[in-house]
Order: sequence, then structure tokens, then C-alpha cells
Amino acid sequence: MPVSNKINEAIERSSWIRKMFEEGAKRKAEYGADNVFDFSLGNPNLEPPVKLNQVLEDLVRDSTPGQHAYMPNAGFVETRQAVADYLNTYNRDKFSPDEIVMTVGAGGGLNVVLKTILNPGEEVIIPKPYFVEYNFYLDNHQGVPKLVNTKSDFSFDFDAIEEAMTEKTRAVLINSPNNPTGKVYREDELKQLADLMSHFSGKFGQPIYLISDEPYRKIVYDGVVVPSVFDAYNESFVVTSFSKDLSLPGERIGYAAAHPDISDKKMILAGMVLCNRILGYVNAPALMQRAIAHLLEESVDISLYQQKRDRLCQGLLSFGYELTKPEGAFYLFPKTPVEDDVAFVAALQDENILTVPGSGFGGPGHFRIAYCVSDQVIEKALPGFEKIIKRY
Amino acid sequence: MPVSNKINEAIERSSWIRKMFEEGAKRKAEYGADNVFDFSLGNPNLEPPVKLNQVLEDLVRDSTPGQHAYMPNAGFVETRQAVADYLNTYNRDKFSPDEIVMTVGAGGGLNVVLKTILNPGEEVIIPKPYFVEYNFYLDNHQGVPKLVNTKSDFSFDFDAIEEAMTEKTRAVLINSPNNPTGKVYREDELKQLADLMSHFSGKFGQPIYLISDEPYRKIVYDGVVVPSVFDAYNESFVVTSFSKDLSLPGERIGYAAAHPDISDKKMILAGMVLCNRILGYVNAPALMQRAIAHLLEESVDISLYQQKRDRLCQGLLSFGYELTKPEGAFYLFPKTPVEDDVAFVAALQDENILTVPGSGFGGPGHFRIAYCVSDQVIEKALPGFEKIIKRY
Repeated sequence: MPVSNKINEAIERSSWIRKMFEEGAKRKAEYGADNVFDFSLGNPNLEPPVKLNQVLEDLVRDSTPGQHAYMPNAGFVETRQAVADYLNTYNRDKFSPDEIVMTVGAGGGLNVVLKTILNPGEEVIIPKPYFVEYNFYLDNHQGVPKLVNTKSDFSFDFDAIEEAMTEKTRAVLINSPNNPTGKVYREDELKQLADLMSHFSGKFGQPIYLISDEPYRKIVYDGVVVPSVFDAYNESFVVTSFSKDLSLPGERIGYAAAHPDISDKKMILAGMVLCNRILGYVNAPALMQRAIAHLLEESVDISLYQQKRDRLCQGLLSFGYELTKPEGAFYLFPKTPVEDDVAFVAALQDENILTVPGSGFGGPGHFRIAYCVSDQVIEKALPGFEKIIKRY
Repeated sequence: MPVSNKINEAIERSSWIRKMFEEGAKRKAEYGADNVFDFSLGNPNLEPPVKLNQVLEDLVRDSTPGQHAYMPNAGFVETRQAVADYLNTYNRDKFSPDEIVMTVGAGGGLNVVLKTILNPGEEVIIPKPYFVEYNFYLDNHQGVPKLVNTKSDFSFDFDAIEEAMTEKTRAVLINSPNNPTGKVYREDELKQLADLMSHFSGKFGQPIYLISDEPYRKIVYDGVVVPSVFDAYNESFVVTSFSKDLSLPGERIGYAAAHPDISDKKMILAGMVLCNRILGYVNAPALMQRAIAHLLEESVDISLYQQKRDRLCQGLLSFGYELTKPEGAFYLFPKTPVEDDVAFVAALQDENILTVPGSGFGGPGHFRIAYCVSDQVIEKALPGFEKIIKRY
């Protein structure tokens, strides 16, 4: 085998996704990209805020020496201070640069936190449906995912979480606002989760960490506010990026923050900094670290995503689709009118509509629509959504 | 334990390095940074070529949509084409973008290649002395380093390499020009290595890969040319970055290239692209990908490093240090006049000279001087080097 067995299996397993993308590419070639409605990727269609380019222009004109050099593996202290200041706007506890590690996106940050805490075979509880890359991120460090069901509105099923707790449980990994559902966990849900985790931390004699993946924190609708996991639970990490709220996913810039009162903070942070280095990230990209220090309060115009959500929900509901209206992120996760979500997604392809089966997120019987696309794509795709559901 | 056992051990093991850095920081605080001569880090003192800022200014003024968005995990095809064109200037075989994966520096690239090929417990042969981060990179993917001696001039000891070959050998990892020795492997050495590896590939029935880590390729002296591993051996990868030749280490931009005729090329490349994604890198930073496409022929002024090497070698030799003159990179790896290199490095600290013990590179009885520092630092440190060797 030219590649490792694990990578071979992963390539095999993902072959259906590849086929789907190839089918999409074929359709774009055949019908023209404008006539294929691609809802399959979380690649934001909105451009970054204008301020980004102003900031970048200033930065690249600044000839202070050492701007592209190595800095401490945790990142520039000025950037970490800016992140701490931002966290202090919505958290009860007070952050300093010491609790912040700048990372290569949230993907980098999650791997840094997971490598820091996981011994081989230790378990991480993840509510379904979920972002499937988590499986890879856990496996990178020989961690084991314990997937647990949520309720029909995607809120926590505490019985399921309790049942999944074992002596090997090292962390619970949540994602709010959620990809693929758009669910935002409420303050009382987080409090109840924290109580449960405290109970089992005590029972098993070591902290069970809460890891919250929050790249969509600013992308929320109807005045919803994402409550702070830090306010709910001391043994917690927040990992995030600027990929979605600033539309910068290609630049790979994000951070991981640990609670100011996390147990053994010094060792945890030393571990995170070490892992940032030894995983080959070394540090988050320097220029983007300096840029985002000026952009922490910024975001793309969220109301534009809200309009897309509203138009799509209104359309799909009127055609008879069943769905839970997302409170954040830019994904919709409707039920498929048949059990076989892969078949239903294939049927949508007949109308040049590209989506992803819920099975790909641990949520069979659903499909994911990434609506970070132009209004025109939504408008032109709606008749196809209507036509296909009528078949069932 | 708040962190994993492995990370705890790594933190413990590296505590002497931390102490050394703390000692250096203390001395800088006490004597002033200008009076402490820090040769401990490979952080280039030369600024990037002026063209970098011109290119960046043009790029950040360009308002074409999608410039900061996700691109294919392998990177922008335009950048990969530019890299292929560059590789075609010095390799016999012809590269296309298909063989190139843009990575988060060489650290990212090495992890991508290693994860692609390594099954747990498989071995990678590494000639000593070597860049010790390789240990972490192998361990990230449960690979096992098999360290082998080199000759006194740091050239390959083929008997040692042959002896290290087992059925578990998956790769040989070399670094040319070498950190910490500055050694450049000659064409005939690479050919002999390739012959040996072909022999054992045949014997064990699967390719043993040659991985060449080449971030210092352009930093060579006295007309030395770094021969191509691709010309020597088909089953090979080159991993590199722009950290050293463009003085961009903080920006995390590099690439991994596979030989155009590597066996099972399609699967190898699919594995590399998958690993770039699932290791959490996702892709190399977008803006820097676009920048380096215009900078492949550029480098800092290498003659400045050559002057530093010459001044330092001339000085140290005149004081009685024994050393092999480096042919490339910006490190000098002299013998310590006593066996205990840690003690000798501590003695140099008395003169406010910060270096790294050879033990840290698998080369005890030596110490590493990173001479990517200002000429003034070298001049001011020379008397201290003289004073300390006189003690022995």
C-alpha cells in the first residue's frame, strides 16, 4: 500500500463525497456554473469587510523589521491582548494574553487542544449531528468520538450525554451556532451541561473539559446571543476562527482560549503552546495575526445571511419541507421526505442542486444546505427544490 | 494529569531548553539586549526581499472576489503551476501542479507527507545530527525514528544506514543543507543512497521513500549547488518553505512535492491533499500562496550570510575551535573542547553568548551557533568565544 492503511480507508470512505463533487463539477461544465446551484460548501460568498484591505494595506507598507519573522509560538502578544480585550466584552471572567494561543484557523486550534489533553483511547462526547472533521481531529491524537443523540430540535439530550460518560471521558465537544443545524445552545442548557460534567469530573477524579467550537458566534439572527461557555464552566476551552465572520477561511487564522480559572492553567497553556509548535503549525500566520488585532469587533453584514435564511426557509416550508429554523451559522438542515438522504440528495442533483446528505453529519434523514451563496442562486434553485419534493 | 502523559513528558524533557531561554531572557533584562549575543534561534535577521512588499501591496489592493476564500486543499493552481515551473528549472523530470501541495511551512509539509505514508510503528531513518522537531513530527503519526550516525564530516555512513533498514522501514528523512551542520549532500552520495534504498525496497517488496527537507536550498556558499533528490530517486518527496530564503518564517508558507514518477502517484497525492485537510491545516495561507507565486526566483542576499559564516569560522578557528566549514544554511556546529556540551554552552552563557548544545540535535560534543544575526553581534561575541575556550 503506497499510503497508510488509515489514509487508504479514509480515501475510500470519502469516495462517495468525491463522486458527488465530481458530479457537481461535471454539471457545471455541462450546464455552465451559473446554472448549477452549489449549496454544498461552507465557503462564505460575502467578501471580507472593507476594513480588512485598509488594515492590510497599512500593514504591508509598515517597514518595521521582523514583521514576518518567528514570534512566540502562542502568537504576537499585541494580538493576544486584543483577543483578550474582546473576550472581556462578553465574559464574566477576565482574560489576559496568557490564556490565548493564536492558531491556524479553528481546525488548527481544535487539534492543539485535543493533542494537549488526549491520551490514546480517551473519549470525547460529541452531540449529533456534527461537523464530521471532528472524527479526523480526534483520530489524529488517538482519541475516540462518542457520538450522542440530540432531541428533535437539536438541543442536548442530557440522558444520552450521561449515558456516554465513562472513566475514559476526557471532554465534551460542542459547536454553537452549530454546523449543520444552526442550533445555538441556551444559557440554561450550558448550565445543565456544566453541572453534569462537574458531577462526572468529581466522580472520576479529573476534570472533563468542555471544548466549544465557535466560528459562527457572530453569525446569529433575530437578536439571538450565543451564551458564553466560560461563564457556565471553568474547565473549558473556546476555539474559533475568523473564517466565517470575516470571510477569511483561506487565510487560516483563529485562536484557542482557555478559561482564566481552568485547573492547572500553567501546564495546560504550556501544553497548548508546545502542541501548536510540534503539530507543525509553529504559529498562526504572522500578517493575519497583525491584521485581525484591528478587526475583532468587525464582521460581514450578518443581515444578508439572515435574508438568505428567511427566503430559503419560507420557500422550503411552503413546498412542504420540514425544518427547524436555524438561529445562527449559514446552514439549513431540513428533513428529507424519504429516509434515504443520499438518494434524495442525488435527486436534487437532477435539478442541478448540490447539497450534502445528513448521513455525512451523523444526521441521516436530513440534508444540509449551505446558504452562504448569492441571492440569485437561492432564487433560481427554489423551483428545483419544489419539483423534487413533489416526487415524494 | 491535566495534559496527556506524552505532552507532560515533552514539557518535562524540554525544561532544560526552557531554562536556557529563561537564562537568556534574564541576561537580556540584566545586561541589555544589545549586550547579550543570541545565537540560539534560526530566526533570520535579514529582512525579506523588497519585492515581497511590492507584491503584497499589489495583492491587497486587488479587489477580485474570493481571494481570501477556501481554494482546493492542495492550494491555488496558479501557485502550484509557478512552483512546478520553478522545479522544472533544476530537475530532469517535468513537474505539473498535480505533484505539488502548498503547505503551512515545511513543518506542515513534513507532517502531511509523514501522515500520508506512516502506519503505526513504522520506521523512518534519520542521519544524525538532525533537526529534533522530526521526533515530534514522527510521533504525531506514531512513526518511530531510527537515528543513524554520519561520518566525522557529516556525510552519510552507508553501513549505518544499511544496518538500520528493516521490514518496518518506510522512509529515509534527510535535510540538505543541514540544520545544524550546514552539510550539503553531493550528487554521488544521493545516488549511492538511492541505490541502497532501491535494493531494500525490492527486498521488502514496497517502496522506501526518500523525504528531503530543503528550506535552505538557496542558502549555499562558494558556488555549491544542492543536487536534486528527484534526479537521484523516483520514490521521493521534497518538502520546503520560504521561511529561510525569503525570511518569512512567521507566515507559514511552503510546499511538498512528490516525484512525477512516484509509484501510485494518484493515491499518494490524494493522501497528501486529504492529510493537509484533516491535520487541521486545511490549506496554506491564501494571501502568502498568491505572493510567493511571484517570488520563486527571489531570495535574500545570500552573500551576507556567507560573510557572517566566514568571519565566524575565521575567528573560531583562530581561537582553536575545531569545526567543519558549513556549505549552506546559517548554522555552525563546532566541537566543544570538552565532552560535556551542555556544560560548555553554560560556560558561554557567562560571556552572554547563547548557543544550543549539540545533544539537542543528536550530536553531543558539539554546539550549534545560528549565525543569522547582525554582524555586530558576531563581532561583539568573538572575544567571549576566545575567552571561554582558553579555560579548557
